[in-house]
Amino acid sequence: MKVEILTIGDEVVRGEIVDSNKALIAQRLLELDLECQYQVSLRDDPADMKAAFELAIQRSDLVIVSGGLGPTRDDITTEVLAETLGREIQLDEDSLETMRLFFARVGREMAETNRKQAFFPTEADILANPEGTAPGFSVEEKGTVFFCLPGVPRELTRMLDEQVFPRIEARLDSAGEVVRIRTRMLRTFGMGESTLEKELSGIARDGDVELAFRTSFPDNFLRVMARGSSIEEADRKIDSVAKQIRERLGDLIYGEGTDPMEAVVGRLLTEGGQTVAVAESCTGGGIAQKLTAIPGSSGYFLGGVVAYSNEVKKSLLGVPGALLEEHGAVSAPVAQAMAEGIRERLGSDFGVATTGISGPGGGSAEKPVGLVYVAISQAGSGPSSPDFIHVERFEFPVDRPRHQTLTIQTALDWLRRRMLGLEIVGPGLLRKTGGGSTPSSVTVS
Amino acid sequence: MKVEILTIGDEVVRGEIVDSNKALIAQRLLELDLECQYQVSLRDDPADMKAAFELAIQRSDLVIVSGGLGPTRDDITTEVLAETLGREIQLDEDSLETMRLFFARVGREMAETNRKQAFFPTEADILANPEGTAPGFSVEEKGTVFFCLPGVPRELTRMLDEQVFPRIEARLDSAGEVVRIRTRMLRTFGMGESTLEKELSGIARDGDVELAFRTSFPDNFLRVMARGSSIEEADRKIDSVAKQIRERLGDLIYGEGTDPMEAVVGRLLTEGGQTVAVAESCTGGGIAQKLTAIPGSSGYFLGGVVAYSNEVKKSLLGVPGALLEEHGAVSAPVAQAMAEGIRERLGSDFGVATTGISGPGGGSAEKPVGLVYVAISQAGSGPSSPDFIHVERFEFPVDRPRHQTLTIQTALDWLRRRMLGLEIVGPGLLRKTGGGSTPSSVTVS
Repeated sequence: MKVEILTIGDEVVRGEIVDSNKALIAQRLLELDLECQYQVSLRDDPADMKAAFELAIQRSDLVIVSGGLGPTRDDITTEVLAETLGREIQLDEDSLETMRLFFARVGREMAETNRKQAFFPTEADILANPEGTAPGFSVEEKGTVFFCLPGVPRELTRMLDEQVFPRIEARLDSAGEVVRIRTRMLRTFGMGESTLEKELSGIARDGDVELAFRTSFPDNFLRVMARGSSIEEADRKIDSVAKQIRERLGDLIYGEGTDPMEAVVGRLLTEGGQTVAVAESCTGGGIAQKLTAIPGSSGYFLGGVVAYSNEVKKSLLGVPGALLEEHGAVSAPVAQAMAEGIRERLGSDFGVATTGISGPGGGSAEKPVGLVYVAISQAGSGPSSPDFIHVERFEFPVDRPRHQTLTIQTALDWLRRRMLGLEIVGPGLLRKTGGGSTPSSVTVS
Repeated sequence: MKVEILTIGDEVVRGEIVDSNKALIAQRLLELDLECQYQVSLRDDPADMKAAFELAIQRSDLVIVSGGLGPTRDDITTEVLAETLGREIQLDEDSLETMRLFFARVGREMAETNRKQAFFPTEADILANPEGTAPGFSVEEKGTVFFCLPGVPRELTRMLDEQVFPRIEARLDSAGEVVRIRTRMLRTFGMGESTLEKELSGIARDGDVELAFRTSFPDNFLRVMARGSSIEEADRKIDSVAKQIRERLGDLIYGEGTDPMEAVVGRLLTEGGQTVAVAESCTGGGIAQKLTAIPGSSGYFLGGVVAYSNEVKKSLLGVPGALLEEHGAVSAPVAQAMAEGIRERLGSDFGVATTGISGPGGGSAEKPVGLVYVAISQAGSGPSSPDFIHVERFEFPVDRPRHQTLTIQTALDWLRRRMLGLEIVGPGLLRKTGGGSTPSSVTVS
């Protein structure tokens, strides 16, 4: 089945917005094992649109059109497609009524211009839009099926799920072509993409299972996709491959699906009934910000200090002035004193701290830009379980925003590792790809 | 001049990445008054690519191609375009030498596969790529000019600037068609997009000047674009329209260009030789994180406290326990005590504080989700200039991430307003569009 995606709108073609609808639709189509062949974006121009519709009828079996269904005079998808197919457009009374009810529900008056959104080409299959005013529609011509949908991502997404995919599946089923696709996302932190690829070589070599890599700095995601004649079969294949991946990567995988590191850490803290406090210098509040982005974080995050100046390190964290003078603010002893200081002052189970030089300025020969110390401290529970501290030195040769991001994720990963009883290790992603990191560490437990 | 953009790569068409190159190129072309007519994305497939190149020769005058110039066997743009045009490909010794030097400079060995990147169609105009290994090239066929560029955004951007635009400008110049376009971005915070549009109605109605609105929550940007026969003329038109806009919007415009609010605040603090400290509850470190994202912020940002629990509000900020008991943590008196507490403890000129309920949980009838207090405190300079405090209550009926973002921006905007001697007002964007915010404020100065 040859698949094409058309998005329509001046704002897209002029580059005023980055059109993510094409990627959204293409990615969802993969779930039905349908690989998009062309993505085309057009202005709200009748001649351009007509030419594109004609080309699509010629070369594609399935065409998803997004945009141009709005109430303004720029929105001409329905008219132009009808004209291309030599069809009339006609009012659908049911759609008009649904639209009236929609406006009544949101308490707005329906403008006269909205009326045109209830017109469709003859023989169109109307697609309900519970999120907005413009219904979509589907028409078939010479074996090519068009699905015309609004450009608003929220409306588009829901209509793909509820209206478009069931219809495509029914077609594939009746053609005996249905293949079930299941995907799973494994989230990793700490290893570079090229190293990951090497570590996983030979896995998912079977054509029915695909393994894709995606970098979302500082994480790397593994997307496992399996085909089967049933969902159960596809799931079995994914389980088998995921198991092989876990055997090779172990604790580099911090989670699955859409939960970021801070959500995983939050869940572990909640489960363990433990609390955390942070003392941040170079990350400037970024660890606190990540932790508190998660709803319910007030249950385990007590608070923190952003100690940018030495004065604050002394006054709010109790870092001894002598330590700052002897070793400097960016040093292992100061990182340790910060992590322990915040933990003791706030009475939390864990304390994490960062101190470093994110750049671009502020470096020296001895303490270059990129240098950072991360520390984690855990309160002991008695004489047989003393306090735990781990401090490590890194050089992350990346720009300021990435330096902060990478340091934040390292600190969060250490919380995860400590709670799971794993070894506390820093990210190898820059080490293994020759980035020049020179870690050294101190563990006292 | 009919313009088309082609991007090539399986990862784009499958939706594995959102391709922002098309928007990037289209937006830049507008600066030369060239409006893109088609945007097409293709797989790394010779037949699809050949068909697209042929169609482009037929319908477009200028074709910008991005992607498919890499060293792997998937990268076939050069070969397929040469074949489409009936040309040979030939080695360019200079490019090979430049590539060898590039690898030597970054200390990596040049792989044999990179050699193919030094081959070009006959009669190609080679485009230098100082950021990477793959040079681009330009070829002309039947009046259609192709510019083939790499897909890496950093490389693409620099090559557009240095290689592509000068060549296009020279063509437009020699055809006597040159129109100079200048754009300016005005950054606003505090008013909704629809209200802004109303306030600015009648401005830039002349066809030579365009005014576009873009929302980047919680900011709204105004993009003024002017055409002229010279840069000076276009600039004059922009100046005139920008002046009219400033007369209507006044201090809602916090900056121009690419600098975010935290950069503007940082510049004002630096210029005034003043310092700031923050006490954050519901924003969870987000204000500190924004401020410290700016290089050089250690010159004016002393630090802060993320006071998520009441204990921390008492111990690190000195908020009286009685105040917390009487009014609750989310209250005007506590916000005030936090702002003053952090300022006094860290000895800064300014203190800002936030306390609220970002949700989704934690609300009550009296203190609903969305409620937030923002406070700003400034140290007085003597008996004739006492301490300044301003606290305001807002209800922002938005989800947790937007609640935090909006609160952070409000606090930063207050720093800006205070330093500029402007009235301290909260964002009206949700008030004016009927979002149900009910602000009330206390100012003591």
